[in-house]
Parts: sequence; structure tokens; C-alpha cells
Amino acid sequence: MVPVCPRFEKASALLSKRWVGLIIHILMQGPQRFNSLAETLSISPRVLSERLKLLEDEKIITRRIFDETPVRIAYQLTEKGYAMGPLLEAMATWAEAWA
Amino acid sequence: MVPVCPRFEKASALLSKRWVGLIIHILMQGPQRFNSLAETLSISPRVLSERLKLLEDEKIITRRIFDETPVRIAYQLTEKGYAMGPLLEAMATWAEAWA
Repeated sequence: MVPVCPRFEKASALLSKRWVGLIIHILMQGPQRFNSLAETLSISPRVLSERLKLLEDEKIITRRIFDETPVRIAYQLTEKGYAMGPLLEAMATWAEAWA
Repeated sequence: MVPVCPRFEKASALLSKRWVGLIIHILMQGPQRFNSLAETLSISPRVLSERLKLLEDEKIITRRIFDETPVRIAYQLTEKGYAMGPLLEAMATWAEAWA
């Protein structure tokens, strides 16, 4: 595929949103709870919620509910999300060298 | 570098602009004249001018002037532009498979 189609541009637009690349990067290490993500990123719960919602809508992350007491909820990458690894790496490499 | 810094997000924003990825992709094959680009892309001269100006400002492309009669002008990638190759490829691969 040449980088012309709307899918290419939509993927770029997603990653251009503040925090999105970093959230995906962090989740590459494994599932994370909301509070842990908010702490690592030092962002407001409101902004984090918005970004997680966006990533859920795009099926890049999913909420995993652990049947414990109290119930534990964590966010984890889907297969689509994990597949972003090489892309994130290529983007970061270029940005570091050139941007 | 983790994908957090503004440079990462700026690079994504650039590629999310319509035609930008494709223009860079086409120029990977070699320098192109304005009219040839406009024809290949089937876009208006106004839009193409805007995108080329943006890419020149970002030092991703440069105008090359051939000392001929009449003077010939072509657009070509800079080193920074050529360095986007792996990134474009990773983005296109992911978008094709998942977006």
C-alpha cells in the first residue's frame, strides 16, 4: 500500500494526539491500571480518560476486568495495539534524529 | 526516546495531513517537477503548493533548480526526508493490516 489512503492519515492523526503514543508505549510492557497510568504520565484523570476512551474506540486497547474483591480493572493492548510496536519505534527514531 | 516528546507528536501531525505521506513516498523515487506531481496526485495546484511549502519549511524537501533554458525546477527529498522511509513503511504496513 502506498501512503495515500485515508487509513494511513487516520493512523497518523491518532498518534499526533498528545499522550497517545506514550500510553501505547507504556502498555507494551503489560496491562496497567488507571491510577498507575495517571501517575506515570502525570496527567489529569480527565485527559487520561479521554485518551483511553479514544484508544478503546479504535480497538487499540481493551479493558480487562479481574474477578477479584475489590474488582480490579486494567487496560491492555489488543493485537492491533501490539502491532503498533514497529511503527512507534520508527516514528520515535526519526523524530529523535531529525525533528 | 520514548514516544512522549512534542517532536514525536509533531511528526505524526505532519503525516496526518492529507497528501503529505504520498508526496514523500513519490519523491523517494527521485526528484519531480511540480506539474508532474500535480498530475500523479490529481490534486489542485493550490493544495499541492501548500503541501510543498509545508514540506520545504520542515526541511523535508528542497527545490532544486536546473540551469537550463527554460529553467527547470524540481522538488527532491533532503536527507531528513529520505530518512522518513522506514517510518512511512511501518505506518503503511500497520494501516493496511489494521486500520
